[in-house]
Amino acid sequence: MTSLQRILAIDAGGTTTRALIVDASGHTHGFGQAGGGNPISSGFEAASLAVVSATRAALEATGVDSPTVSSALVALAGGNSAEPTDLMATALAEIGLRGPLHIESDLLAMFCSGTPEGRGYVLIAGTGAVAGRITDAHLDFVSDGVGWLLGDGGSGFWIGRKVARAVAAELDGRGPSTALTPALLDMLGLGAAADRTLGRPQVQLQLIRALYGMRPIELARFSPLAFAAADDEVAQDIRHGAATQLANTFAAVHLEGHGGPIVVGGSVLRQLSAQPPLSTVLQDGSGRSPLITVDDGVVGAAVLALRRAQIAVDNDMFTRITLGLAELRRKA
Amino acid sequence: MTSLQRILAIDAGGTTTRALIVDASGHTHGFGQAGGGNPISSGFEAASLAVVSATRAALEATGVDSPTVSSALVALAGGNSAEPTDLMATALAEIGLRGPLHIESDLLAMFCSGTPEGRGYVLIAGTGAVAGRITDAHLDFVSDGVGWLLGDGGSGFWIGRKVARAVAAELDGRGPSTALTPALLDMLGLGAAADRTLGRPQVQLQLIRALYGMRPIELARFSPLAFAAADDEVAQDIRHGAATQLANTFAAVHLEGHGGPIVVGGSVLRQLSAQPPLSTVLQDGSGRSPLITVDDGVVGAAVLALRRAQIAVDNDMFTRITLGLAELRRKA
Repeated sequence: MTSLQRILAIDAGGTTTRALIVDASGHTHGFGQAGGGNPISSGFEAASLAVVSATRAALEATGVDSPTVSSALVALAGGNSAEPTDLMATALAEIGLRGPLHIESDLLAMFCSGTPEGRGYVLIAGTGAVAGRITDAHLDFVSDGVGWLLGDGGSGFWIGRKVARAVAAELDGRGPSTALTPALLDMLGLGAAADRTLGRPQVQLQLIRALYGMRPIELARFSPLAFAAADDEVAQDIRHGAATQLANTFAAVHLEGHGGPIVVGGSVLRQLSAQPPLSTVLQDGSGRSPLITVDDGVVGAAVLALRRAQIAVDNDMFTRITLGLAELRRKA
Repeated sequence: MTSLQRILAIDAGGTTTRALIVDASGHTHGFGQAGGGNPISSGFEAASLAVVSATRAALEATGVDSPTVSSALVALAGGNSAEPTDLMATALAEIGLRGPLHIESDLLAMFCSGTPEGRGYVLIAGTGAVAGRITDAHLDFVSDGVGWLLGDGGSGFWIGRKVARAVAAELDGRGPSTALTPALLDMLGLGAAADRTLGRPQVQLQLIRALYGMRPIELARFSPLAFAAADDEVAQDIRHGAATQLANTFAAVHLEGHGGPIVVGGSVLRQLSAQPPLSTVLQDGSGRSPLITVDDGVVGAAVLALRRAQIAVDNDMFTRITLGLAELRRKA
């Protein structure tokens, strides 16, 4: 590979897809974004379209006529070489991919967005929640991330579901009074209709109709209410419960003496990293070294794409990619 | 109304619909069954078909040519006169209904299946979980029964979900070893493939695929595993948690000095009524009078149908309906 060759790195997230063009020296040449590119949540066709759209934007941003890339890597939730990638590869070939398309785990890409080291930990809590241990630059052990129904303890969904259940419980006398109730009813535009139908308050019937009309995962929308109600005891219990779940998930991947940094990400984790017992576990796990916070996995996707092309990524190159991306984002 | 007139009582449950023909003296004349008749879980058309099918069977069992009924009452989950009943009324008119169709709450019908008294409590835990307080023969106050996503604490779904989550947690090191894991994997026909893909055991990926391929409510299928694993600590915790939830739900409807019997029903409640803290709460709530266990709401639907026809149901008539139904069921 010559330094003229370009590599395409894609972070296909549930709500945003990011594409970055880098060269073999770690210089960044173009960045683009599109909507959700996760085949599981968006469907394979919509996900492919998002990947193509982000890529097209990144290629245009390079300022080169008919730009091509020599290889591509897509970081995906549960990313796995067994996933069907033909559709995506064909679509990318049409707009300039001249080489192989690799798929990698978005969790590993998040870790690699925070550090070029080959060992350490990653803990993410956004809509979902998952932790991983990295050894020899590979995902060695993953805990949770099994989705809203079976796990994702301490995630945005987990918190939002607790909020909704706490409100439903207050409305029929099973649960204590909580500031979450007026907050949720207000968010849903429901009045405080006190009339009862067959022994049940009207407003609870309205809440049931509103919430069962959503996809379950959308309950994650209510997690900010648990953070806004700072002094509310029910909200405090939910936050403490979420931090306990995340601490447990991290503990499952933690190995005494393994070492390396802890990379953290996700909107929920940002708000819970100082909450016991999670704060304690993260401090102990990191041997008092600071946590590295990342916003997404696109730098990591570039690191992984370079490594697939047999290019070692040292600290200098890692810094170059990170700063280069920040510059491209400023200009975009 | 003369004693020749016949009244149709229907208990439209989630998995079974039961129809009973009674007269004004409480004599039973025909009984029939069909599949799920709950519009919420089965859809309105399938529910109507089940109601018609059970009714047809009950009418045939009366042994009368072209039998007719002077009124009908359907007990439904969340039964509410505002529900669309035109389709059901039209369908029933075609096969012999000559009068009005009333809709009532299945929870009130369950209570009335256990006692002709006009005050007391009812607590049901099957796939869902709900409690009610009855005053002056009406549902006065209802707690929980808000469905799998928002409540149903201690229900079959609640237990089955805990079972599935405990297994998922053991498989990635977040949870303790439990007898529920081999039991669930065996039930799903999954092997104990120990190989890891991207840091996750193969068998966990298989579990995820199997369980997200179901409708969430189907997780209730796994609740028997929590009762079968009698000495398993994780299963014990789940059972205790379920009993705590149900105790809390009952406490929300309980009113000191209200009096009356406690009618209980549902497959899960049968297995949890002796489990603390639920056992304690039920004993205190009943003032040491025995619990009345019911299997379904069809006797109660008949009691409610008779009351709608201005016929008082005393102890003798109640016993006549109950014994008459038992006799019809034996013959069926």
